[in-house]
Amino acid sequence: MDLAARAVTVRRLEDGATYREPFDQLVYATGAGPRWLEVPGARSRGIYGVATLADGLLLRQIVEDERPQRAVIVGGGYIGIEMAEAFVARGLDVSLVELGSEVMGTLDADMGALVSAALREAGVKVYLEERVTGFHADGGQVRAVETDRRTLPADLVVLGVGVQPRSELAAEAGLPLGESGAVRIDDRMRTGIPGVWAAGDCAETFHLVSRRPAYIPLGTTANKQGRICGINLGGGYARFPGVVGTAITKFNQTEVARTGLSEREAQALGFEYGVARIEDRTRARYYPDSARMVVKLLAEKGSGRLLGAQIVGGPGAGKRIDVVAAALHAGMRVDEFMYLDLAYAPPFSPVWDPLLIAARKAAEQV
Amino acid sequence: MDLAARAVTVRRLEDGATYREPFDQLVYATGAGPRWLEVPGARSRGIYGVATLADGLLLRQIVEDERPQRAVIVGGGYIGIEMAEAFVARGLDVSLVELGSEVMGTLDADMGALVSAALREAGVKVYLEERVTGFHADGGQVRAVETDRRTLPADLVVLGVGVQPRSELAAEAGLPLGESGAVRIDDRMRTGIPGVWAAGDCAETFHLVSRRPAYIPLGTTANKQGRICGINLGGGYARFPGVVGTAITKFNQTEVARTGLSEREAQALGFEYGVARIEDRTRARYYPDSARMVVKLLAEKGSGRLLGAQIVGGPGAGKRIDVVAAALHAGMRVDEFMYLDLAYAPPFSPVWDPLLIAARKAAEQV
Repeated sequence: MDLAARAVTVRRLEDGATYREPFDQLVYATGAGPRWLEVPGARSRGIYGVATLADGLLLRQIVEDERPQRAVIVGGGYIGIEMAEAFVARGLDVSLVELGSEVMGTLDADMGALVSAALREAGVKVYLEERVTGFHADGGQVRAVETDRRTLPADLVVLGVGVQPRSELAAEAGLPLGESGAVRIDDRMRTGIPGVWAAGDCAETFHLVSRRPAYIPLGTTANKQGRICGINLGGGYARFPGVVGTAITKFNQTEVARTGLSEREAQALGFEYGVARIEDRTRARYYPDSARMVVKLLAEKGSGRLLGAQIVGGPGAGKRIDVVAAALHAGMRVDEFMYLDLAYAPPFSPVWDPLLIAARKAAEQV
Repeated sequence: MDLAARAVTVRRLEDGATYREPFDQLVYATGAGPRWLEVPGARSRGIYGVATLADGLLLRQIVEDERPQRAVIVGGGYIGIEMAEAFVARGLDVSLVELGSEVMGTLDADMGALVSAALREAGVKVYLEERVTGFHADGGQVRAVETDRRTLPADLVVLGVGVQPRSELAAEAGLPLGESGAVRIDDRMRTGIPGVWAAGDCAETFHLVSRRPAYIPLGTTANKQGRICGINLGGGYARFPGVVGTAITKFNQTEVARTGLSEREAQALGFEYGVARIEDRTRARYYPDSARMVVKLLAEKGSGRLLGAQIVGGPGAGKRIDVVAAALHAGMRVDEFMYLDLAYAPPFSPVWDPLLIAARKAAEQV
């Protein structure tokens, strides 16, 4: 990319030919790619990342055609637990290795522990606080995963150790990057270079709770940024307010969601906070299919402003996180939140929604 | 009740004895009772209201013991459709008579029509815009329901024609009532008579969108008011901000929820509003058990302030109403709402949550 000359060099994959393409407006939207481990044997056959639809289809094909028996998953984040679900459902013997003290490192450890428990209950062997040190291969095909504590035989390995922004081209061309290494953009998706825009998983966003730039690459944010970018480069006017760090996933019947700041994040940012953690039910206790759910809620000391929430629970628990997300956007205080007029009927909630119970407890801590 | 003398007269049900009980603090919490129809035969045996747990248990007993074949439900509100669900599940032949143009009169008719359709699909015979004019009885036992258009044979009749506050004693004692006929209270549950409090279904509440007193008797509000009342009469300080008119129910797999103002209510209050109605999915279209959901969203012209929402859809649709409820509490504008960072993963939502799609459309109308 030659931003001064307002042209990019394109290589046509079909025949390898290169040509120069001038532009008036340029959108940098290269996305993110899976991180890879830098340990011996990490490029062996049979080790996969999962970033695209094609990656998922390929893995399904391999499971169906090659009938691997033992899958080892490296990383207990979103990709890790979703792949564990898929492999367990297909009858594989599944081991999961996680560097942190619990899986789901975007949650605090006390909440992640609930997810680790759900994995174990489904037969997944969960190895925590273990570092993968290498892979053993035979004829180029992976046969085992070596950690700092054991050797795990493996027919198939999936890496779920995070993603990184594809910002190399941007860096070379002189587009400003943020601390995260992703392209820095403003709330209209401008890079600071006139006529050059960026959006999606290659770019940063703004965190409305920490009031700082953040790199949280997620499809729904990328999609919103794309819309904002399109409106602005077409001559319209649109601003993206930012995110509050909402995310959701599931493992079998266990739903996992978070928004705002975790306790660990709040500490790192220097917030003084009160915190409550409660256990309640998704529906009235006596109603069929009422399931357990745990809510953790943080609010700032002094101001009482909500800082974040985490939910782990049965069907119907996870999407409740959206109520806290909306409250975070509005800068709501926990003593306002605790009397929200949330929908009650026995098939849907206890008389006080579990979120309100958590808020009542948290209000006593601020 | 003799408020000036600060004493109440109590009749002991056990033996009919009456005595005078002095008080320092009095809580008036008499709840609400089911409305009854004032038509010939309305006091026949076999005609039931459903207000208490005991009412529900009695009805179940009758269905099990007497094996009625034909049930007629009068009223298509919350009680009406929940009883229809219960009777259909027990194999009864169910007819439902509703005075309005569609069932679920707390929704606008275009949304209520979706619920009428779900009832019919389950085999309920739905008669709209029909008035019950009387009941035929044989030996005191109801045998048929007469409407202004037909005669419906009935072994069992359930009335679901609303509730009214039990405020007669309050009125006699001189407690101020609101326009609704329920006891008027302030945000600390004070009646205006020192030391006399009221809370729950016998009392009014404050509607945060219309900014007026409202009578919306619901268990979750009553419970919150009770807590506020207890704190205050115990010498503490608590205020109840009010409600936004959130309610939820279901008929089989169809979830029904509303919050804020309906189009009809907005019109009656003189609001100028833009409205959007969209159809989307509860989960990513390709994900198992993705179901249809319809969202209707209202926002004020000029200010863009959200006014209300209605949802009818499959499992996972209804509780989404809480996000709008939180936004109404915060006085959020529709152009703020449409970029909320709501949780996305394919098992939980399309990339843009249906609420956001509705908000995008509504934002074009204000």
